[in-house]
Amino acid sequence: MKSSKQLGNASLAFQTPVYIHSAASIVGKKEGEGPLSSAFDMICDDPMFGADTWEEAESTMQKEAASLAIGKAGLRPEDIRLLFAGDLLAQSMASSFGIAGLGIPFYGLFGACSTMGESLSLGAMTVAAGYGDHVLCATSSHFASAEKEFRFPLGYGNQRPLSASWTVTGSGACVLGAAPPSPAVLGHSDPLRRADTCAVITGITTGRLVDYGLKDSQNMGACMAPAASDTIERHLTDFERSPLFYDAIVTGDLGAIGQQILLDLLKEKGIDLTSVHRDCGLMIFDGNTQDTHAGGSGCGCAASVLCAELLPRIISGEWKRFLFVPTGALLSKVSFNEGDSVPGIAHAVVIERADAEKEG
Amino acid sequence: MKSSKQLGNASLAFQTPVYIHSAASIVGKKEGEGPLSSAFDMICDDPMFGADTWEEAESTMQKEAASLAIGKAGLRPEDIRLLFAGDLLAQSMASSFGIAGLGIPFYGLFGACSTMGESLSLGAMTVAAGYGDHVLCATSSHFASAEKEFRFPLGYGNQRPLSASWTVTGSGACVLGAAPPSPAVLGHSDPLRRADTCAVITGITTGRLVDYGLKDSQNMGACMAPAASDTIERHLTDFERSPLFYDAIVTGDLGAIGQQILLDLLKEKGIDLTSVHRDCGLMIFDGNTQDTHAGGSGCGCAASVLCAELLPRIISGEWKRFLFVPTGALLSKVSFNEGDSVPGIAHAVVIERADAEKEG
Repeated sequence: MKSSKQLGNASLAFQTPVYIHSAASIVGKKEGEGPLSSAFDMICDDPMFGADTWEEAESTMQKEAASLAIGKAGLRPEDIRLLFAGDLLAQSMASSFGIAGLGIPFYGLFGACSTMGESLSLGAMTVAAGYGDHVLCATSSHFASAEKEFRFPLGYGNQRPLSASWTVTGSGACVLGAAPPSPAVLGHSDPLRRADTCAVITGITTGRLVDYGLKDSQNMGACMAPAASDTIERHLTDFERSPLFYDAIVTGDLGAIGQQILLDLLKEKGIDLTSVHRDCGLMIFDGNTQDTHAGGSGCGCAASVLCAELLPRIISGEWKRFLFVPTGALLSKVSFNEGDSVPGIAHAVVIERADAEKEG
Repeated sequence: MKSSKQLGNASLAFQTPVYIHSAASIVGKKEGEGPLSSAFDMICDDPMFGADTWEEAESTMQKEAASLAIGKAGLRPEDIRLLFAGDLLAQSMASSFGIAGLGIPFYGLFGACSTMGESLSLGAMTVAAGYGDHVLCATSSHFASAEKEFRFPLGYGNQRPLSASWTVTGSGACVLGAAPPSPAVLGHSDPLRRADTCAVITGITTGRLVDYGLKDSQNMGACMAPAASDTIERHLTDFERSPLFYDAIVTGDLGAIGQQILLDLLKEKGIDLTSVHRDCGLMIFDGNTQDTHAGGSGCGCAASVLCAELLPRIISGEWKRFLFVPTGALLSKVSFNEGDSVPGIAHAVVIERADAEKEG
């Protein structure tokens, strides 16, 4: 039996679902003061996470989230066959000095803030093909390491335009598996399962680079919205679905400006996303009180919101299915300084409710 | 039927081989003056590749190598279902502004100089699972963009220790496919096939991060040798093979010092690689006349040597099979400046001769 069906020119429907065994999220203090405060597994008040540098802080947070996800699934690192992870820093430093240290066979990724979509896509493809019984998918971002990497050192105290987003200090990690997760063992595991309800990945649409020539790195929502529009449109076409098939279509970090552009772009194509669109960047902070301007951003934004808020809505029965579409802006400080545009990319992952007993 | 068999804790044997449809290599002037001069598809005398910046030069070279590989396979970009690519620059800038512009659904990778092994591994996994009939795997490096990214601007004229390697200006790209490549069409295609002989990927061993705590970024061969040793040892164990099963075991860019360390490390484990070991970094330059010290390095080193020199040895009948093991040093200038070690990683890919008629 084929493990999947190719749809359109960039989509796959998995013939057998890929189970999400566990999900873990760790965030910083500011994220812990936002609307999703109670949803995160861990909120760390120390922005340094006990480390000496911003990069090491991010590495520590990411590795901790990964260890938490592995533990929740009732597994040990040596039970994980493959690891897909990356981050925003040059040469994926947070992952190389963080999660990669777990000793799991490792494929490093770079998809900017779309990384959780990329890692879940490759992880699900791997599990669906029978290449591994358990794989780990993770990413992270840190406000201070990202500001240092892309913009200004914090001590410079620069002013931020209202179109700028606020890089989330956070990490999300998921363990995927071929069989349904086992029920929780008190004090030993806390899998993504309630009674027989669990969450599965049933399809993906791979993103392609979309560049409208925008150059404003302080308005990344606008730079990424065309990529989100492209992926969502192709996804709905490939799967022959309407937006209302989903309880929610959740982008990663378009923020307030990017969201409006996405809705407008899709409207021009006859697709009305208004009632089902959500954006992790608009969910994680309170725009009125937290001074985060356009919203949250960073690899860790979509990843931590997925693990803390979106997947639990599947398990609780509130949602039957949603489309997770993390969005990435593929810029670097060199490309910015050389006057290049900010191309975008977005990877879509279909996440649905499933019955562990029935399908297991 | 399962598309593969899991071996050990990090290897896969593909039940049906994945065909390498085409391979293209483009290098700079210095590489074109080396021992493999006549093997490359294209040698560009202009280090800027007609562009205005080093980064754009690398992007141009990489995109051109990809287009050449697609054309050799007799395909168009829209025939390629997935693209796996990355490079050494921060936020994979060469790929984001190069090959990603082809509009192919794109997974960005970061594996430093192991990237060609990572992209071939993920590409082969994708094709073997039936996720796409054709995928493109590519990477690149450029001497000047790498020196700027990791070390000193060229104008500074720094002295290089003898343990340092010379980053190759080069790119390699391969199209992989599920069926054997079609015979060449004069003037239209130039696939990796001679009569019925073609090259296939039959297995992989995924690398894991190995860190011996070495901190000398001017001696990357020493930093990466432990990772190469780890992957090669696990590969031989997982597949129950001796080194002599292969006509050659070819690492990416260990150079003279790294090669000796690799041979010593494996000898301690009872594995004698002496007679079959080759290193792309030692093949691409003439160490006596080209002043490249320890040897060539960079993502483009292993990738261009694979496409120009290694795969043709399979097609010509000189080799029956070899193990391709690109090696990566996962450092950044920030990790170096913060005093971190230089962890290594190496991904192994089994490449063999196959009969297109018999197996097609």
